[in-house]
Amino acid sequence: MSPSVAADVPFDGRKLEALMEWFDVDVLLASSRHNTRYLTGGYYHWFHARMARAAAQRYLAFVGIPRGRLQDAFFVGGMTEEAGLVSHDIWIPEQHLTEPRHSPFFQSAHAATEGALRCLRRRGLTAGRVGVEMEFLPASSYQRLQAELPDAELVDVTGLLGELRAVKTPAEVEILRRNAAGSVEAVQATLAARGPGDTTAVIHRRLQAEMALRDLELQWLIICMGPDGVTTKWPSNRAWADGEVLRVDPGSSSSGDYVADLCRMACLGEPSARAQQMIEDCIAVNDRLQAEIRPGMTCGELNERGQRLLAETAYAEHGWHIVHGCGMVPHEPPVVRGDPAYVLCEGMVMSMETQFQHPEVGDIKMEDVVAVTAAGCECLTPAARSWIRVGAAGC
Amino acid sequence: MSPSVAADVPFDGRKLEALMEWFDVDVLLASSRHNTRYLTGGYYHWFHARMARAAAQRYLAFVGIPRGRLQDAFFVGGMTEEAGLVSHDIWIPEQHLTEPRHSPFFQSAHAATEGALRCLRRRGLTAGRVGVEMEFLPASSYQRLQAELPDAELVDVTGLLGELRAVKTPAEVEILRRNAAGSVEAVQATLAARGPGDTTAVIHRRLQAEMALRDLELQWLIICMGPDGVTTKWPSNRAWADGEVLRVDPGSSSSGDYVADLCRMACLGEPSARAQQMIEDCIAVNDRLQAEIRPGMTCGELNERGQRLLAETAYAEHGWHIVHGCGMVPHEPPVVRGDPAYVLCEGMVMSMETQFQHPEVGDIKMEDVVAVTAAGCECLTPAARSWIRVGAAGC
Repeated sequence: MSPSVAADVPFDGRKLEALMEWFDVDVLLASSRHNTRYLTGGYYHWFHARMARAAAQRYLAFVGIPRGRLQDAFFVGGMTEEAGLVSHDIWIPEQHLTEPRHSPFFQSAHAATEGALRCLRRRGLTAGRVGVEMEFLPASSYQRLQAELPDAELVDVTGLLGELRAVKTPAEVEILRRNAAGSVEAVQATLAARGPGDTTAVIHRRLQAEMALRDLELQWLIICMGPDGVTTKWPSNRAWADGEVLRVDPGSSSSGDYVADLCRMACLGEPSARAQQMIEDCIAVNDRLQAEIRPGMTCGELNERGQRLLAETAYAEHGWHIVHGCGMVPHEPPVVRGDPAYVLCEGMVMSMETQFQHPEVGDIKMEDVVAVTAAGCECLTPAARSWIRVGAAGC
Repeated sequence: MSPSVAADVPFDGRKLEALMEWFDVDVLLASSRHNTRYLTGGYYHWFHARMARAAAQRYLAFVGIPRGRLQDAFFVGGMTEEAGLVSHDIWIPEQHLTEPRHSPFFQSAHAATEGALRCLRRRGLTAGRVGVEMEFLPASSYQRLQAELPDAELVDVTGLLGELRAVKTPAEVEILRRNAAGSVEAVQATLAARGPGDTTAVIHRRLQAEMALRDLELQWLIICMGPDGVTTKWPSNRAWADGEVLRVDPGSSSSGDYVADLCRMACLGEPSARAQQMIEDCIAVNDRLQAEIRPGMTCGELNERGQRLLAETAYAEHGWHIVHGCGMVPHEPPVVRGDPAYVLCEGMVMSMETQFQHPEVGDIKMEDVVAVTAAGCECLTPAARSWIRVGAAGC
């Protein structure tokens, strides 16, 4: 790889080369929003960052990288993103912008695919193993690539890209820290304005707005109240009654597609002794496990240790504990319950969930976001690690 | 088709049958979020309504409908949506929920595709023309369907589904009316709290929150200020100065995926005489064209009449005018600049854009959402059809 280009790439260029060797991929052709954004260093067409569909088509971008030739990388997008691309100054040498197909405005997957084919041909990359994202690439693009590259084999690189993203740069950890902090703040602000009789749907709507004010988008919300929280997890007309616990478990992302996956708890009035014990145990399991995490620990050790800590709690038979990597994709590498020999490295970011589900108490869960550091582990969600005070009266 | 099932379907079952005949499709197999939602009558898995990706896979649902056999329709989803589906009570007789593949929680496109194959085989639908959404179906699903249904031909039904959605039910018009009204209100509320020195990025963030408070999601925002608005259309650090016009052109959608595509204008201080003339001409073109729309008018007539009205304005050489269908997809049928013989019907909903771009004034645009009614045309965006007053001082 050319050292001058390698210095500019926003990811680990040498790791990409090794992964492409390992997965036996001759050219990478990423097309999902999150992976093209990752490979460009944060760029995506502003107009289509949330909605791809338009007219009888959809927007699509490609990032192509030949193995060992970062200097021959290419980006394929549409004419309408020219000005935005210039202001973003991405590292990729060739930016191939296609003409819209049917409309004065919208680029299509069809046009993007023709553009990618042109870029591949110009580089002589018409045979060998072409790595695509099989669950994200449109069927129409797959069909064209297959027909136009009869000597090439299209192989799935979802796993390769997940592994490439596993270790975060300090800048990425900072984005995740800011998103996680903003997400907890949004939950706090939402509950400060709420109280008895509020439904999970009302809380959901307010949380959307509090997220938006912090430049976060609520991507999903698991929300449940009281004992029936064991079964009903989505926003509804269920109203909050005195003494009931509330689980607010949002996934939110910044415009850069980095996901904060965490959970916070509230209680209206006084929690029961059982609820109090459970939340203390959630916090204790997370605290103790975080104190043990360090680079070099294996996923097997991490998972075993977490399960042992859970087993020592008062309501262990109602408990559940999992740690999972989290970055641009919820549950990305490290896959803690995957290969037990997989080793944690500085820069990996994970969500750590400890949870109890009890028929009389409901659903109690504490989920933190943690980053592996050189010295051990940093909790990116230090705020509101017990009951969040509700409304003016508090609890 | 069985009359009992036909009565329950949320779309025009006879039109679907005719379209499947016309496009020569034996079985429809929709998989995009918007089209599966449309065909179920508004249902989508709550957890994945905004983000499909999770772990090394993505969520996928299918709706399958054999031609002329609505009673044999099927829905494919994941185990985690069972409770949500029950509370939604969709019309589709068979709901096939698949086990997650890799994780205790997430369903994958792989599992959904196997489920769809099972449903097709059970109905003997393994040959003939299978209609899929080529720009939205994942490549992995296409690959499996191709391999497992060697006697079938996979054909694109994006156009068929667009045409099926072209005429809205009164309930759909009501959703679009509410979304459009909420969207204008959100723009008004955003600008009421803003003023000199605000950047387009700050206005963008506030608009996101005002949309969220109204259960709308901002999907895109074209925003520009002053003369350089002619070239720079996205949220940035550009600050608003006295006398400058502001174009706020959001696309927003409710959780039901119906898109409100409209534009409103503001001015800080007094607009110039030219700006004033332009906004009055935008409103006049839209008003006069809306007064002429009625069922039976062709797209050719509508477009020709719009262009003639534009040509009569003072700054016509700087002008632009277009009308396009809008529902679940921006720029869906009626495609007003498509087939000139295409006839407008009661229930069609369109966005109507009149715009001037002038190097000294900037970008002036008025975009309304209109519905074709039995008697003529209803403007779904009657509010704020001139400069929106800004901050406390107004303009």
